[in-house]
Amino acid sequence: MQDTSKRPVILVTNDDGIKAPGLRTLIRIMNEFGDVLVVAPDKPQSGMGHAITIHSPLRLQEVQINGHREYECSGTPVDCVKLAVNQLLHRKPDLCVSGINHGQNSSINVIYSGTMSAAVEGAIESIPSIGFSLLDHSVGADFSEAEDVVRQVVSQVLEHGLPEGTCLNVNIPRKSEEKLKGIKVCRQAMARYEEEFEERRDPMGIPYFWLTGVFRIQDHGEDTDEWALKNHYVSVVPVQFDMTSHHSISTLNQWDFE
Amino acid sequence: MQDTSKRPVILVTNDDGIKAPGLRTLIRIMNEFGDVLVVAPDKPQSGMGHAITIHSPLRLQEVQINGHREYECSGTPVDCVKLAVNQLLHRKPDLCVSGINHGQNSSINVIYSGTMSAAVEGAIESIPSIGFSLLDHSVGADFSEAEDVVRQVVSQVLEHGLPEGTCLNVNIPRKSEEKLKGIKVCRQAMARYEEEFEERRDPMGIPYFWLTGVFRIQDHGEDTDEWALKNHYVSVVPVQFDMTSHHSISTLNQWDFE
Repeated sequence: MQDTSKRPVILVTNDDGIKAPGLRTLIRIMNEFGDVLVVAPDKPQSGMGHAITIHSPLRLQEVQINGHREYECSGTPVDCVKLAVNQLLHRKPDLCVSGINHGQNSSINVIYSGTMSAAVEGAIESIPSIGFSLLDHSVGADFSEAEDVVRQVVSQVLEHGLPEGTCLNVNIPRKSEEKLKGIKVCRQAMARYEEEFEERRDPMGIPYFWLTGVFRIQDHGEDTDEWALKNHYVSVVPVQFDMTSHHSISTLNQWDFE
Repeated sequence: MQDTSKRPVILVTNDDGIKAPGLRTLIRIMNEFGDVLVVAPDKPQSGMGHAITIHSPLRLQEVQINGHREYECSGTPVDCVKLAVNQLLHRKPDLCVSGINHGQNSSINVIYSGTMSAAVEGAIESIPSIGFSLLDHSVGADFSEAEDVVRQVVSQVLEHGLPEGTCLNVNIPRKSEEKLKGIKVCRQAMARYEEEFEERRDPMGIPYFWLTGVFRIQDHGEDTDEWALKNHYVSVVPVQFDMTSHHSISTLNQWDFE
C-alpha cells in the first residue's frame, strides 16, 4: 500500500497526556517507520470516549521535547486528531497511532477509551489507525515487550492497509514471567462494569461521588480479546464505527408503527 | 414484556442539560407511561460521546422543578445513567430515555452524541433504552410533532422489549409544512464531518480554535437514516455497543504475525 520511495507521515496521540511514558515509547518506535507528528492532550483524558470540544475553544501549543517539536492540545484525543489533520498537516497522515495506553482497553472499554476514540476518529477520516494499550495502569509500566508487538502490527498495517471503516484495538498483556504466546485476531468480549460509587463528604458536609467499578466478563468465547489476554496472547480486534445493529432491523420491522 | 399491574420505572436524561425544553417535553410524556426519575447534566454536555468522569468526583444535587423532585449531575450523560441506577434507584429502571435532543443525532453523530451515549450505556446495563433527537438545534425548537413519535416508539418498546445489547436512535425531522410520512427502521448512513476550525486570537494575541465542520453524507442508500429524514420520515436505527468489525476478522487472519 505504501509508497516505499518516501517515509510515511505518522500521527501519534494518546489519552494519558503528552508526558506519559507510553506515548514516549510509541513516538520512539514510530520514528523508525516514518516522519512523526505528535499532537497529544496536555492533561490525562482517560475515559473521555468519543468526546469532542464544542462548548469551549481549543488551544494548540507547540512544545519542544527531547529536541523535537510536538504539540499539546487542551482538548480530547478526538480533538487532537481533528486539529492535527486540519490545522497542522493539511492532509491525511498515512497512519495514526494512539497510546501506548497505561491500562486495558479490551472488551467494552473500547467505548469509554480516549485512546481508542482517537483511532476510531482516524478510521472515520479514512486514515489507517491503531490504538495500543498495555494491561498495566501504573506510570512505571514496563513497555519493553510491547515494543516488538507495536513494530509487528505497524509493519502489517503499512504493508496491507486496513479495511475501509476499520481500525485496530491492540491490547498487550502486562509483562510477567510468562512469555507472550503470540498475536491473536479477536472479537470484543461481552462485558460490563458493575459500578460502585464511593460516596464521600466535602468539608462542608456535602456528598460527592467517585466512580469505581468491577469489570465483569459475561462471555467465555475463545475467540474473544479477554480470552486471548488471559491466555497471554496479544489481542487485535478490528473496530468499526457503524454502530447499527443490522441483525435487529428485521425484528423492529415487525413492530406496529402507525 | 411489562407487568401491566404496575407502572414502569422510567429514567429520563439528556445531554442538553436539565433546563432544556426537549427534556421538559420528554418528562411530560413519560409521566403518561410510568414513574419517572430525572437525572440530567447541570450544564450542556453535547458532543461528550461516551465520556465518563474518572479524574474528578461527581456531584448529584436534588432539585425541585415544577413541584417534582429531580436530580442534576455535574458529570456526563453516561455518568447520569450510572449514578441513577447505582445511587438512586438501586435497581434497573424498566426504560431509559434520553433527549429530546435539540439537534440531529443521525448517522455518524451517534458516536459523538451525549444523548445517544446515555442510551448506549443503558443498553450496556441491559436496560431497554431510547435516544430521541429533533432536527432543530434552536432552544425554541417546536417539539409538538415529536410528542406523538415519542409515544409510539415508547409504547412499542414497552410492549416488545428490545433485542439484547441494542438501543434505539430515533431522529425526528424538524417541523415544517410537510407532514411526517411515518416511522422507518433504518441503518446508520456512512457520513463524516469535514472539519474546519475557526482560528481566533485572544487579547494576548495567542491563537485558539473553535471546532466547526460541514456534514458530508457519503451514502445514498434508501435504507439509511439520512434518506428517511430527508424524505420526511422519522428514522429509527437499532444501535449496538459491540464495535467489532466481524467481517474484517478473516482478512486480518491472513496477515503474517510471527
